[in-house]
Amino acid sequence: MSGPAGAAAVGTLLVHSPHRKGIVTSLAQLLSDHDVTVVDSSHYSDASSQMFFQRVQFDASISAVQRDALEVSLGAMTARDGMVWRIAYPDRAKRIAILASKQEHCLYDLLIRHRAGELACTIALVISNHPEAGPIAKHFGVPFHHLPITAETKQRQESRAVELVDGAGVDLIVLARYMQLLTPGFVQKYPGRIINIHHSFLPAFVGGNAYRQAHEKGVKMIGATSHYVTDDLDQGPIIEQATVRCTHRDSVEVLTRKGRELEKQVLATAVRWHLEDRVMVAGGKTVVFD
Amino acid sequence: MSGPAGAAAVGTLLVHSPHRKGIVTSLAQLLSDHDVTVVDSSHYSDASSQMFFQRVQFDASISAVQRDALEVSLGAMTARDGMVWRIAYPDRAKRIAILASKQEHCLYDLLIRHRAGELACTIALVISNHPEAGPIAKHFGVPFHHLPITAETKQRQESRAVELVDGAGVDLIVLARYMQLLTPGFVQKYPGRIINIHHSFLPAFVGGNAYRQAHEKGVKMIGATSHYVTDDLDQGPIIEQATVRCTHRDSVEVLTRKGRELEKQVLATAVRWHLEDRVMVAGGKTVVFD
Amino acid sequence: MSGPAGAAAVGTLLVHSPHRKGIVTSLAQLLSDHDVTVVDSSHYSDASSQMFFQRVQFDASISAVQRDALEVSLGAMTARDGMVWRIAYPDRAKRIAILASKQEHCLYDLLIRHRAGELACTIALVISNHPEAGPIAKHFGVPFHHLPITAETKQRQESRAVELVDGAGVDLIVLARYMQLLTPGFVQKYPGRIINIHHSFLPAFVGGNAYRQAHEKGVKMIGATSHYVTDDLDQGPIIEQATVRCTHRDSVEVLTRKGRELEKQVLATAVRWHLEDRVMVAGGKTVVFD
Amino acid sequence: MSGPAGAAAVGTLLVHSPHRKGIVTSLAQLLSDHDVTVVDSSHYSDASSQMFFQRVQFDASISAVQRDALEVSLGAMTARDGMVWRIAYPDRAKRIAILASKQEHCLYDLLIRHRAGELACTIALVISNHPEAGPIAKHFGVPFHHLPITAETKQRQESRAVELVDGAGVDLIVLARYMQLLTPGFVQKYPGRIINIHHSFLPAFVGGNAYRQAHEKGVKMIGATSHYVTDDLDQGPIIEQATVRCTHRDSVEVLTRKGRELEKQVLATAVRWHLEDRVMVAGGKTVVFD
Repeated sequence: MSGPAGAAAVGTLLVHSPHRKGIVTSLAQLLSDHDVTVVDSSHYSDASSQMFFQRVQFDASISAVQRDALEVSLGAMTARDGMVWRIAYPDRAKRIAILASKQEHCLYDLLIRHRAGELACTIALVISNHPEAGPIAKHFGVPFHHLPITAETKQRQESRAVELVDGAGVDLIVLARYMQLLTPGFVQKYPGRIINIHHSFLPAFVGGNAYRQAHEKGVKMIGATSHYVTDDLDQGPIIEQATVRCTHRDSVEVLTRKGRELEKQVLATAVRWHLEDRVMVAGGKTVVFD
Repeated sequence: MSGPAGAAAVGTLLVHSPHRKGIVTSLAQLLSDHDVTVVDSSHYSDASSQMFFQRVQFDASISAVQRDALEVSLGAMTARDGMVWRIAYPDRAKRIAILASKQEHCLYDLLIRHRAGELACTIALVISNHPEAGPIAKHFGVPFHHLPITAETKQRQESRAVELVDGAGVDLIVLARYMQLLTPGFVQKYPGRIINIHHSFLPAFVGGNAYRQAHEKGVKMIGATSHYVTDDLDQGPIIEQATVRCTHRDSVEVLTRKGRELEKQVLATAVRWHLEDRVMVAGGKTVVFD
Repeated sequence: MSGPAGAAAVGTLLVHSPHRKGIVTSLAQLLSDHDVTVVDSSHYSDASSQMFFQRVQFDASISAVQRDALEVSLGAMTARDGMVWRIAYPDRAKRIAILASKQEHCLYDLLIRHRAGELACTIALVISNHPEAGPIAKHFGVPFHHLPITAETKQRQESRAVELVDGAGVDLIVLARYMQLLTPGFVQKYPGRIINIHHSFLPAFVGGNAYRQAHEKGVKMIGATSHYVTDDLDQGPIIEQATVRCTHRDSVEVLTRKGRELEKQVLATAVRWHLEDRVMVAGGKTVVFD
Repeated sequence: MSGPAGAAAVGTLLVHSPHRKGIVTSLAQLLSDHDVTVVDSSHYSDASSQMFFQRVQFDASISAVQRDALEVSLGAMTARDGMVWRIAYPDRAKRIAILASKQEHCLYDLLIRHRAGELACTIALVISNHPEAGPIAKHFGVPFHHLPITAETKQRQESRAVELVDGAGVDLIVLARYMQLLTPGFVQKYPGRIINIHHSFLPAFVGGNAYRQAHEKGVKMIGATSHYVTDDLDQGPIIEQATVRCTHRDSVEVLTRKGRELEKQVLATAVRWHLEDRVMVAGGKTVVFD
């Protein structure tokens, strides 16, 4: 629930807006006027899009009245400058839902990291179309829902998933090697709030069987990519990627084994960054304050 | 001119053939029959294609008569088993031609590595369509030819390049960020003997402006790929690849700078492996005995 | 239980000996004489120590009589040439014991990899001086033994561990972040059969609190090292190492989190290589046929 | 001469001071009062030392009068808060001296990167105790001085080097695999202004023959470290490190070849960061705003 350096009670403000001269100073002034103590801050001006991004970490020990007043002032900047912002306070942990299928490695990985304190969130529930995930969720004390899917039941089960997710007050949906395509309706309901892991170095090898595609191409490295889900398959804004060497000796099975390592790390990193309010999306790309 | 462990006077035999039971033993027997002392050996059986690959390093201090007899026996295996083979002896250094354009980093890199003894070859000549490469070649004592290219002169200059390459007895042509497309005629003349460096992690970002493509996509890693040149643009058998992290902060210029590092290393590694007879091509992919 | 390429029923022969001319051919001949079909083979001659190493994978579908005859012939080579060898057949899975303490990440990691089929072995038991590992072992269906250790009970509990390990017919002991120093007696009982993971890039930062040592030094990368355990603390033959970048922003806690990734991977890789009979030790160093 | 995003005419202010509440806001206010437009800014509060670090990039198109006034105000903060600061303006390129010995790779690398525009500086001179560097410096149009060193002449030649360096108005001295130990007098004259490249992953393998030490230890990765030079051999504040895999097959010669890659990159990165005013030293460690 805290920043990476173990600091206590830190809030995070994320803003982006069209760039204009003096914006850094204005924002510093606004925070100062509200008696908000800045703990850490970084910004980034994108030359090609003329957009400005800033992440401010501040001492969150301010009263509810101060919080409200701060939000009113930020709202005024939005009206005046087209600034988009959001604030996260440490006294409310984000809630996530994990959707899994038969492959267990990413599910296990997220649950273990959470248990080790690496992911500042509550894992509200696990949903899987396979029953095997049940005992895993149970081992970690997380509610589990088995929603098997056939062509016939897909729409109904997805509606059920929405009910569960919304009923649990979920902030972020993590697709942990979830092997079902989500419908556009589902995706559009949670913009910027679904993170997927794809088993290739996108944009290479879109779609299924990416390790087989890589093997057939004879590449010397394989990769994994985590991204926000949009309606375009495997085309959403990329959050994180990693690669590892492979050789002609590596069968599809070996590539799959090597790739699991990447998938786990890349997904967990993307989820952690999202939970720590480090990621903003603009123009189909991410800005990550790491 | 020696193997990586500094061994002296080592010859290299590369073979590939359809797999059959006992092939390792037959080849060991054949070499033994010819009194060839094996120094190092590795093989690889490809399960999907049922192909067998072997690289044998042997004590090359055998007489010309022995060499001839060995080749006769290998020829018999070719006739009987469909085996493809080639032998390289250390007393003949391979000769390479470097084709360059305006970007100098790969050209410099290859020349410096050669000077440092990393590349066991003679750099027979440098050809560029820009005059700036002239003083560089001269500094390293390598013959230089300036062949400027326009739409009109392209065909003629390429013929001139063929004359120069063939006149110099060149074994390998290295495209060191050579920005001209080669004609099919040129490519087909040197099968498996032209190595290119492409500034992306293929198969992503084929063609020109790969760093701009990467920037627009918002990837979190960029790559470089060295491959043998075939008639399909950027589709030839991949020899080596590498990647490096990038962030949203990296402009196209920064990606280009970071990419230059990859390009230099990946091209030099591919060239070195080729010169050390570590690479075989089959089925559009490479087997690299590194 | 099979090699990495999914081949069925493959045996592995590891040999090392003082180098002598013709050794590759002799060994090929010996195997051929016993009608052993070589599937894969690699060797390595160490120039500085004048030692020869070879790993041969062969079709293990030979009779018990053939196996015995093969071992007799290998025994003769040992007598004559000072060759050291061992053979592993796929019909007997190796058995391992995991020793753990309070940190769970390596324990979980090994159990999950085993469940996913990455580690060709039987996990015979888990021993920990902390009770928390019990439910974890149980979740994966592995026998668990809680041996709490105090200064007073250490000797007795170690004797108990020896009984358990020996009683379970264990081939390899894996120290999965086991935070107790083993006595020389224990170590000497299992030469080349105990693998440890140390949380630094050895030989830097020997001993405890390696991440704190790294933080105080201000290094820009941290590492992890797996090695066979010998009587010299953190000095045994290194099997595998890995590193990851860090920055001045990384507190000891962040280094610890980053390091856990390395520890898991490096330990799992070392264990997998050992189980696949890829590692030989000579002169205080390892030869790894990967 | 510009920041990484190609921005024009950007000045850089670096500050560090004991941390106190409100310091970010005070500094923002100070800059605002002087009509300085912040382009980019990042800061870092070190929890263990309670130190605060900030790097501000600002629009440098301010008058000489404004510059003076700004420095007066910063001076007042120094007096009041113990703040240490320095400013760099883009209209004055830093000047560097390269000290080299027989190994050429780092020398070539720096000269080529400078020529490619990667290093925002003037290379004022090259000094070497070997004559071979002369033609290299000449090829790049850089003044060269040959100062051969014997036990007898060492002191005198070092004094000559000081004269040359000071006469050329040098800001930074780069030891590009300079194989001579500098005297304490020399080192103390240029605190935080001499960058060295060491051919190991420090603190492992201090001193000479680091690749041989690594080979004897049997490590599975080698590294390189760039650091500011202090009186303690190879113990100065680390700026950058990198590592690469190696295997038992790699002789000392191969390690040396692989290590050259690391040395080039790590040294060039450290020099670039220093030239771009990204590095501050405190408590024997560096803070790098990359």
